[in-house]
Amino acid sequence: MASQGSTRQPKYQRIADALKVAIRSGEYGPGDRVPGENDLMATYEVARMTARQALGVLQNEGLVEARRGAGVFVRSFRIRRRRGIQRLAQGQWGSGRSIWSADIDDRELVVDQIDVGEQEADSRIAGALGISPGSRVWVRSRRFVLEGKPVLFATSYLPSDIVADSAITRPDTGPGGVYARLAELGHEPVHFREEVRSRMPSVDDAERLSLSPGTPVIQIVRTAFAEGGRPVEVNDMTLDSASYVLEYDFDAR
Amino acid sequence: MASQGSTRQPKYQRIADALKVAIRSGEYGPGDRVPGENDLMATYEVARMTARQALGVLQNEGLVEARRGAGVFVRSFRIRRRRGIQRLAQGQWGSGRSIWSADIDDRELVVDQIDVGEQEADSRIAGALGISPGSRVWVRSRRFVLEGKPVLFATSYLPSDIVADSAITRPDTGPGGVYARLAELGHEPVHFREEVRSRMPSVDDAERLSLSPGTPVIQIVRTAFAEGGRPVEVNDMTLDSASYVLEYDFDAR
Repeated sequence: MASQGSTRQPKYQRIADALKVAIRSGEYGPGDRVPGENDLMATYEVARMTARQALGVLQNEGLVEARRGAGVFVRSFRIRRRRGIQRLAQGQWGSGRSIWSADIDDRELVVDQIDVGEQEADSRIAGALGISPGSRVWVRSRRFVLEGKPVLFATSYLPSDIVADSAITRPDTGPGGVYARLAELGHEPVHFREEVRSRMPSVDDAERLSLSPGTPVIQIVRTAFAEGGRPVEVNDMTLDSASYVLEYDFDAR
Repeated sequence: MASQGSTRQPKYQRIADALKVAIRSGEYGPGDRVPGENDLMATYEVARMTARQALGVLQNEGLVEARRGAGVFVRSFRIRRRRGIQRLAQGQWGSGRSIWSADIDDRELVVDQIDVGEQEADSRIAGALGISPGSRVWVRSRRFVLEGKPVLFATSYLPSDIVADSAITRPDTGPGGVYARLAELGHEPVHFREEVRSRMPSVDDAERLSLSPGTPVIQIVRTAFAEGGRPVEVNDMTLDSASYVLEYDFDAR
């Protein structure tokens, strides 16, 4: 299977394509080691740089990841299904369970970092909450870990004039979490908007989520509205894209 | 503002951070040229390689893009709002602005490529449509362009036993498009599921969507269900992440 330069594609690209076909067909399954530089050099009779470029293509597309000293492995997409809509049904949080419980299949999503404090809203958050820039907001930052791997970093902003002195200003918000407390305060969320984007991680994102190279993040900004249309929470979430599929189910009418 | 090596961060990272602050504050707005290698070398008294690495950080995060011979520019995110759930996205929840509202530009999408044909469903598509692998499906591939820039590539799969001989098998499906024709055929879509992921582009994706380096894609797989739960269409969409924000609006109950 030595390459004879018969097509227009560069050699490393043809090798990468062959490896991709082998991964897609299941010849190399999730977690399997794929041929390394030395193997590719021998099989395709190419220079080390060409073999390295071929593996680089797969790595950049997020299909494989290099583990130092061990080789290059097919990425295991142990993805979590995040249901945008069912999990926000009132029954989920009205009955005293955390809003995140619908996310948990068999594995446990655990908060391993939490930071709660009050600050002034910048213009972006103030605009989203419909308040004046500089107004006070409570900010809750949490990192969520799945089997030791950080997968989600979420920062919620809530207007101080609504949540001051409530359990929302404490690390432990009590049964049912933030939405149950908002309901008790007379600002029950009845409508949600989720805005979803994708981008490459910042250095902070990559550190917080321990991202492999070539892994984008999904950013979800969720706004919770109370009856009458007042925004009562903006939650800015950053997700490891290799760990998540977002699901939205809805009727046509 | 020469760097004195006073912190643990590498120099290029500190320069990149300073440029990011300047971009976020609006000192450099969308489309503005940011300082180039020569400017950074003079301002920060660093080597060319350090200046290049600093600009590389911004480019990898998708904040800037290099234009050959012209310099490095702040990326203009002229993003398009894609509303997943039209009926709930009306003005009644308007008191909180979209966090990206300043960037959003609801312009017309144009189809510039269309390809329609019949083929056998592979196991992935057959599974999604609830049919046997190898069953015939009609496949409609379309590329959508926004002001000359390709932003979306969509491939729809529809079971041949439903759509054979209908306008769905022709490039022009007529008024109301595929869903109107499905309704006429007695298979009106009444429920939708969208599954959303993010990943780095394949070589094909990058070519089809003319993606800048460092730009991930969003993949949306949309399944349309008829009354009774039969899947009647699977639409596999690849979106330029720099061009899109997805919006999902829904009620708590």
